[in-house]
Amino acid sequence: MTVLDLWFTEELHSDWRTSVKVTDTLASVQSPYQHIDVLQTEGHGRMLVIDGKIQACELDEFVYHEMLTHLPLLTHKAPRRVLVIGGGDGGTMREVMRHPSVEKGILAEIDQVVIDLCQEWMPTLGAGLTSSPRLEVAARDASEYIREVKDLDAILVDSSDPEGPSERLFTVEFYRELAAALAPGGIISFQAGSPFFYQEQISRMYRDLKQVFEHVRPYLVPIPTYPSGTWCLMTASSTLDPLAVAPAELERRMQQRGIKETRFYTPYTHLGSLALPPFLKL
Amino acid sequence: MTVLDLWFTEELHSDWRTSVKVTDTLASVQSPYQHIDVLQTEGHGRMLVIDGKIQACELDEFVYHEMLTHLPLLTHKAPRRVLVIGGGDGGTMREVMRHPSVEKGILAEIDQVVIDLCQEWMPTLGAGLTSSPRLEVAARDASEYIREVKDLDAILVDSSDPEGPSERLFTVEFYRELAAALAPGGIISFQAGSPFFYQEQISRMYRDLKQVFEHVRPYLVPIPTYPSGTWCLMTASSTLDPLAVAPAELERRMQQRGIKETRFYTPYTHLGSLALPPFLKL
Repeated sequence: MTVLDLWFTEELHSDWRTSVKVTDTLASVQSPYQHIDVLQTEGHGRMLVIDGKIQACELDEFVYHEMLTHLPLLTHKAPRRVLVIGGGDGGTMREVMRHPSVEKGILAEIDQVVIDLCQEWMPTLGAGLTSSPRLEVAARDASEYIREVKDLDAILVDSSDPEGPSERLFTVEFYRELAAALAPGGIISFQAGSPFFYQEQISRMYRDLKQVFEHVRPYLVPIPTYPSGTWCLMTASSTLDPLAVAPAELERRMQQRGIKETRFYTPYTHLGSLALPPFLKL
Repeated sequence: MTVLDLWFTEELHSDWRTSVKVTDTLASVQSPYQHIDVLQTEGHGRMLVIDGKIQACELDEFVYHEMLTHLPLLTHKAPRRVLVIGGGDGGTMREVMRHPSVEKGILAEIDQVVIDLCQEWMPTLGAGLTSSPRLEVAARDASEYIREVKDLDAILVDSSDPEGPSERLFTVEFYRELAAALAPGGIISFQAGSPFFYQEQISRMYRDLKQVFEHVRPYLVPIPTYPSGTWCLMTASSTLDPLAVAPAELERRMQQRGIKETRFYTPYTHLGSLALPPFLKL
């Protein structure tokens, strides 16, 4: 028996690399949009890699998916219609469905191959897209679809980074289309990049969103498998400010919705993640 | 001219590695206690490495040193005598000296070679040990010295991980000696490990400290160059709880002491870092 010492290395930055020990390549597929790998790691579960960048890893995906979802949805009093842009792995929709007020969760993932591979190989995430009358899943281009959809209480932009298929999702033009698709009192969340490595991207995004929305709130969450181990997410809304909801009210909303046993989200991590360090210049 | 592509790789875990691009080795020395390297990285400044583990990097050292220092020292109303255990790089003492109430800062670093190398090669940290009547620097073994010193308002345990020379610093016996060295109303801070990779170590430390101190508070800070990118620090005190000080009072103490232009610490990151995610089982 030959034993290979295989490592997956993400070149995060010209002078920074993270490597994870891999025991098996479960899938490696070129879709019309991108190259997709699903890897079995030795100690951190399965990992979804797109064009060489780690998108989701069973070790820490709960932090990202809970915080991208529950922070905006609990800031909203009763979200009924929620759109997830990207998120083909299913993790974000899995968290959305924990809110019983949600009557319709709509997924707009451009790449059907991502959906299919995660259904097959990453069931802890893929389960989020299990067929349900409350769920509408389709492979479609969110940058087109956003002009058709209306009356959304929340939009969760669970995209890859601003290059390739996701580039248009990070433009002022697209932010205006998101605003037009929201119901009054709606809220949006985004992934925005590493506060240590991509400050310029984060501050440009903040300024661009401020042109369209009254309340823009960056927040930081720990994600070991993303570059630098900390990631910036961001909310935008004309009316809702996640920092303006008291912990007791967030607690009440969690109880009312029966949301228990979160692994990262609490009313206090909600508020704590919004406390920004001064080195992050907006 | 030959151009070498040199990378320093820390094997953080049996299946996880971080690599940083190195342009120069400034020092590489075997001391009586350990092997010490000072590396010039391409984009993240200089880096202190001991026995193959990154101890401090100019990219992110401010997060660790500010949070290990200001969180306990601002929880205390007027710290006069402060002991730093380890901390030979000078970064923690640099932050201690920003508190004008401190009449005496005492360093107990076991390894003179660490002090000398950081004075020479990492001046942004080493400056913290510049000679001053308020400062007492000596190479001495804290596990012995702790029995001689008394009446301390704060002890900052800025040690390496619990193996080799630092092993005794993580025992209940040592915690009792720390308690005996404190003045009434004193407080201690520790570095405790990665919440993603070393949960057992953190929860053992929490339980052991609870045998000796009424208030034990873990808190989490983002440090890209440490394993998993997030690190757990911890305070212990018989009387002081960092979570019980209101933001307005912390703000008042910062103003009173003239502490401005911190890069990570604010009254809100103080409280935010103490908001623990449920996945961290204590």
